[in-house]
Amino acid sequence: MERLVRFGVSLEEGLLRRFDGLLRRCGYGNRSKAIADLVRERLVEEEWRAEGEVVGIISMLYDHHQRELSNRLTHVQHDHYTSILSSQHIHLDRDMCLEVVVARGRPGEIRRIADLIRASRGVKHVRLSMSSTGKKL
Amino acid sequence: MERLVRFGVSLEEGLLRRFDGLLRRCGYGNRSKAIADLVRERLVEEEWRAEGEVVGIISMLYDHHQRELSNRLTHVQHDHYTSILSSQHIHLDRDMCLEVVVARGRPGEIRRIADLIRASRGVKHVRLSMSSTGKKL
Amino acid sequence: MERLVRFGVSLEEGLLRRFDGLLRRCGYGNRSKAIADLVRERLVEEEWRAEGEVVGIISMLYDHHQRELSNRLTHVQHDHYTSILSSQHIHLDRDMCLEVVVARGRPGEIRRIADLIRASRGVKHVRLSMSSTGKKL
Amino acid sequence: MERLVRFGVSLEEGLLRRFDGLLRRCGYGNRSKAIADLVRERLVEEEWRAEGEVVGIISMLYDHHQRELSNRLTHVQHDHYTSILSSQHIHLDRDMCLEVVVARGRPGEIRRIADLIRASRGVKHVRLSMSSTGKKL
Repeated sequence: MERLVRFGVSLEEGLLRRFDGLLRRCGYGNRSKAIADLVRERLVEEEWRAEGEVVGIISMLYDHHQRELSNRLTHVQHDHYTSILSSQHIHLDRDMCLEVVVARGRPGEIRRIADLIRASRGVKHVRLSMSSTGKKL
Repeated sequence: MERLVRFGVSLEEGLLRRFDGLLRRCGYGNRSKAIADLVRERLVEEEWRAEGEVVGIISMLYDHHQRELSNRLTHVQHDHYTSILSSQHIHLDRDMCLEVVVARGRPGEIRRIADLIRASRGVKHVRLSMSSTGKKL
Repeated sequence: MERLVRFGVSLEEGLLRRFDGLLRRCGYGNRSKAIADLVRERLVEEEWRAEGEVVGIISMLYDHHQRELSNRLTHVQHDHYTSILSSQHIHLDRDMCLEVVVARGRPGEIRRIADLIRASRGVKHVRLSMSSTGKKL
Repeated sequence: MERLVRFGVSLEEGLLRRFDGLLRRCGYGNRSKAIADLVRERLVEEEWRAEGEVVGIISMLYDHHQRELSNRLTHVQHDHYTSILSSQHIHLDRDMCLEVVVARGRPGEIRRIADLIRASRGVKHVRLSMSSTGKKL
């Protein structure tokens, strides 16, 4: 467990009141946690602008009846198997599947995997969500 | 398989050339797929502004040594079990876990689940990625 | 000038070090300012989900040779003149203009103005940037 | 006026119907314009990931009573005067000002200007909105 450092922050009274209101609505127990979260979100954005290792979550929505699609998705993931950590498959209804892939690597490479998946015939929607290895958070 | 409708589109020559270049770099085989993707992305954004059913992917990064955190995360997910479809757990290193939860419900409810998870002590980073049931895509 | 309230925050040592590094690179003089900024950004996002009054900046890029476009843009802005505070016009080159409109009103109305401008023939690119009246910041 | 190229696109029937509904609500007169807009938005995102020249709109919200702030903002803008094309100032109320600066240059430089402004004491909120010179749109 890392050492906590305590320091003072000065905020305008009204701003702090509004922030406290937001924290209550979101269920936060204390301000330090909420401020640390804002700080970390900002640092993760920075990680995705740099060249280090990040973690990305790629969600893809597709109709599994589409011929050759599973092959293609398997092929793309295989080509990048060193970056892909895990995959989760949800059957949304008789036709639609949601697959959620967790990838770890440089930002450019993870964006490339998402592009290749998006370009596959039968894939309806792809989102890349930016997360982190947590090493520097 | 739904019926395809074919229609004509007029784009300026230079714009089309640049778009074709982008499609090549992203690995698209044809323009119709790329245009359909842009259309669907826009429709998913609309779904998240309305009140219908959507699918969201919530990723959370946390240190599993944090006392009581697993209990808390289980508790939050249990309270919303009718909306949570599936969950995936990745051990990033000795300390850090990434958990990826797929939820289905109204946009406000899924945002609420993400807020509650974010507010939990020991959670380092939470992202909500907006997807769809695909019913209207 | 509003009264400042001082309170203590506890962050993990490594996180604080990384945050301090970011602040140096961005030219921040102290942490309180940086934390207040993160808090305000979050509150502005909340304002745009609610129904109160916000401020939005709509930028539009267009070719001024396009027939009838100035008429159309003037018409749209006139229909919403009570919400539009100000407008700025930049001649980017012989053909392209950038117009930046500042609007004040409810989020839905400002989004509507941006939609109408985007739909005008000859307009190449429209962005709506979310800001605030600052009353609650 | 650039030459228009016409080509055929195939979309699934239901998707096209939903897209047409969206276009009606947004006031679009025809599909080609709407599709061209989606294409251009995507290309502008690409421009901001590359190293070429872009246009950015920086909005800043501040209390003009803050001592030394105008000096500082003038100073920052002066240091980057070759990139700053124009500026617009709105008096939101007795205290709050909104200033909207249009800058042209490389993405990294425009982000740097926004960072410096954000770090200035008394500035409440800064947003950088990504636009384009329109040369390649």
